[in-house]
Amino acid sequence: MVGEFHPPARILMGPGPSNVDPRVYLAMAKPLLGHLDPDFIRIMHQVQDLLRYAFATRNSLTIPISGTGTAGMEAAFVNVVEPGDKVLICVNGFFGERMVEIAGRCGAEVKKLSGTWGKPFDPAEVEKELRAFRPKVLALVHAETSTGVLQPLEEFPSIMKKFPEALLLVDTVTSLGGHPVKVDEWGIDVCYSGTQKCLSCPPGLAPITFSPKAVERIKNRTKKVQSFYLDMDTLGKYWGNEMTYHHTAPISMNYALLEALRIVQEEGLDRRFERHRRNHLALAAGVEAMGLKMFVDPPHRLWSLNTIAIPDGTDDAKVRKSLLEEYNLEIGGGLGPLKGKIWRVGLMGYTSDERNVLFFLTVLELTLREQGFEVPRGVGASTAREFYAKNK
Amino acid sequence: MVGEFHPPARILMGPGPSNVDPRVYLAMAKPLLGHLDPDFIRIMHQVQDLLRYAFATRNSLTIPISGTGTAGMEAAFVNVVEPGDKVLICVNGFFGERMVEIAGRCGAEVKKLSGTWGKPFDPAEVEKELRAFRPKVLALVHAETSTGVLQPLEEFPSIMKKFPEALLLVDTVTSLGGHPVKVDEWGIDVCYSGTQKCLSCPPGLAPITFSPKAVERIKNRTKKVQSFYLDMDTLGKYWGNEMTYHHTAPISMNYALLEALRIVQEEGLDRRFERHRRNHLALAAGVEAMGLKMFVDPPHRLWSLNTIAIPDGTDDAKVRKSLLEEYNLEIGGGLGPLKGKIWRVGLMGYTSDERNVLFFLTVLELTLREQGFEVPRGVGASTAREFYAKNK
Repeated sequence: MVGEFHPPARILMGPGPSNVDPRVYLAMAKPLLGHLDPDFIRIMHQVQDLLRYAFATRNSLTIPISGTGTAGMEAAFVNVVEPGDKVLICVNGFFGERMVEIAGRCGAEVKKLSGTWGKPFDPAEVEKELRAFRPKVLALVHAETSTGVLQPLEEFPSIMKKFPEALLLVDTVTSLGGHPVKVDEWGIDVCYSGTQKCLSCPPGLAPITFSPKAVERIKNRTKKVQSFYLDMDTLGKYWGNEMTYHHTAPISMNYALLEALRIVQEEGLDRRFERHRRNHLALAAGVEAMGLKMFVDPPHRLWSLNTIAIPDGTDDAKVRKSLLEEYNLEIGGGLGPLKGKIWRVGLMGYTSDERNVLFFLTVLELTLREQGFEVPRGVGASTAREFYAKNK
Repeated sequence: MVGEFHPPARILMGPGPSNVDPRVYLAMAKPLLGHLDPDFIRIMHQVQDLLRYAFATRNSLTIPISGTGTAGMEAAFVNVVEPGDKVLICVNGFFGERMVEIAGRCGAEVKKLSGTWGKPFDPAEVEKELRAFRPKVLALVHAETSTGVLQPLEEFPSIMKKFPEALLLVDTVTSLGGHPVKVDEWGIDVCYSGTQKCLSCPPGLAPITFSPKAVERIKNRTKKVQSFYLDMDTLGKYWGNEMTYHHTAPISMNYALLEALRIVQEEGLDRRFERHRRNHLALAAGVEAMGLKMFVDPPHRLWSLNTIAIPDGTDDAKVRKSLLEEYNLEIGGGLGPLKGKIWRVGLMGYTSDERNVLFFLTVLELTLREQGFEVPRGVGASTAREFYAKNK
């Protein structure tokens, strides 16, 4: 017999999921409705309105995909890519690699522009490749969860204008709700995210939005989308005014997302971004004051995910295990080539909080000292505290 | 500004979702864990063990897909079908049609065996088609949610033995946890379901299981699975002992499923099936005593989903609207060719309860009378009550 389960109350400072507001837990406990209930349809429309706010878009086709962030990535590619289409993918981390994998399974002719893990792409370099390859889709990761790098997108609208045949497809899994994501202003055609990062909702849904140009591309497809589950034509009808049955939306997860988005709306995006920025800067200041090195150069650091170079002579797994077991605090290790090289420390959504920054710096110091690595006593937390005092 | 939302407490007697036990709501409110947390990995293994119990299988590859029932259907087909493969699909309802659609998108050579909506297939007829077509996959719907028909599967093991090249793929979305589903005994190779029907968990996950023969088929594929998100090879590694990161499982939904499965385990499958059978028989007795007709012949009726022929002269939509608005009771209308012809009344999982049967019969009678349709007063509920008294 499988008995009761009582998950420990962790501080989730890994690369996601992040902690959720108690209001979001309560939202999931609200009475279940049928997926065609008028009261649930009202909730669907509210979720869509608030997602448009979060994405800074007026795109009509804006919905939460009934799957996790990876389903969002797959939905992005399968809908706008047809077999034989040229797709240019900028890869400077694990999730760029995943895009290559998924686009390949759509039968695309994929060109991979390889960058450096830990650095963003120079838009001029991308433009050169666009000119040479003339793809139908250019794909980029805005916030690389594997490295902690932010890809600036401000210059892309003027670049993309020169390549009207290309759609701009952007992964904002780790930025939406934590960093500015300006879908319309930046001319993004397909943009997806996950719920469990800066939106601070449990994992299970993938917000996605398609520009009118992307919708046109979908309408003009010659071949059916290979995935029925992720087919935006029918999904759009289910979430749109037709309300044609497609699948049973995850009702309770949509309650959770609605409540998480209501919290975003109440805080306001600008204040929310500033909170993420401030807590990130405090954490980075503390980390560096302890004598550790951040993995990414300051202008390109994500506010939502801090990557710390693991100091020589420390045991990656042992440190993370100790943080988890002694302090109920989760951080992430590196992926792929960065395994054992970096720690990934999330400050996303509800987790992005001064209390967590100070606690993390304190227990990281204690853990490193206990494992024989010399760290100046109390300097991390007090440096962060000074930063907060100076930056009210 | 989007304000607070307070979903009404409906009695969910539609074709799913069903009502959930209060314990399941509370499970979702338990503290979120990271997807690689040892405490969550323990939960994953418990979910898998309990799914094996529910499916009556020893299949190692048994997991909840991170999507709804339709994602389960898609996962079933994309993994075992390669382009050009012959697939025989028995269609006697909406979800059989959907299988044709999905198999087609996998590039299969699909042969559709058309049956009658409202009748099961005769196994001998299916055997004839197997012999003529020699497919690599035979697909059937065990419990057709669109018609309320149960497809008997007891004869299939001996039939399938004659066609060793064929896998048996079965949809048990509306039967798992409510009707016996004997994956190993019936020789089912691929079997999927949804969480929001007889398991009485909110929608969002799709339990699925693959026999060793199906796993072998997957291993010997010549082409990658077209969906990365639903690729069982990598999903199996994520859920297996390797625990290789694939995607972030919907943590809170897995809590919900674990609690729902614990409830199944505590009740015991046999007692649970008997409860579903008894409440169905009471409802059908009441419906018929009122002078209405059940849509399906007695031996082929689903216990989990009762289909009632809409009497001439009644307004389908008006009746359903009145039940919802006056009594907070949801039932379903017909799909496709059965639109306006039948009502679909679910008695699934937590909803399968004497109280709901008696209340439904009472308010259906009141509603029909109010809309000018003559129904004998009080006969439906008292007939059901007599049935209960005689069948303790």
